[in-house]
Amino acid sequence: MGTDAGTRTRAPRGGAARDREIGRVFQALADPTRRAVVARLALGPASTTELARPFDMALPSFAQHLAVLERCGLVRSRKEGRVRRFHLAPRPLADAEHWIVAQREAWNQRLDRLEAYLRE
Amino acid sequence: MGTDAGTRTRAPRGGAARDREIGRVFQALADPTRRAVVARLALGPASTTELARPFDMALPSFAQHLAVLERCGLVRSRKEGRVRRFHLAPRPLADAEHWIVAQREAWNQRLDRLEAYLRE
Repeated sequence: MGTDAGTRTRAPRGGAARDREIGRVFQALADPTRRAVVARLALGPASTTELARPFDMALPSFAQHLAVLERCGLVRSRKEGRVRRFHLAPRPLADAEHWIVAQREAWNQRLDRLEAYLRE
Repeated sequence: MGTDAGTRTRAPRGGAARDREIGRVFQALADPTRRAVVARLALGPASTTELARPFDMALPSFAQHLAVLERCGLVRSRKEGRVRRFHLAPRPLADAEHWIVAQREAWNQRLDRLEAYLRE
């Protein structure tokens, strides 16, 4: 993988590794529980117990969601004594946002060109 | 569903239906083939054949990806004679972008408050 990226005509923007990372972020955000956790952590760090509280879910299932968020880099955690505290890591969120913005800008530029052409 | 939304303290921003739609968009964007199709359609409409060309994939599998994109509203299609043409529908992309932006803004505002507090 990766080494043949230069021979492909449609290499993903920013490289194959970054494209895979963005894919994992979108996959993580596809789930409503994980979106709610991200939205909670956007307000500030929280422990596993605090994060789990709003959800009617067994703790091992909830821990799986946290693991998915941590694997794709959206959240980080560290142990403080006996408590694990999570915080948001904004870069993967920014990368996903920039991917979407790039598509919308390409689409808008095309509309602008079409409009200019129709006015001529 | 829906009717008890008012009794829940953590109703998703913009309502449960919109939150489900955003989830479907993120799910659609989690796949590299579907991201490539969205990026292609951002440059302008294309037929099924044109869209499938860069991919080493059986047409029924590719058609499944198009169906996922169409179900979540990211793309629309219409039959023109014997050819089905697809185009991007930008609103679901904008909704997904706004969700991400809202989280990043909440996170940045928290950082700003923290900084202001530390400076006092």
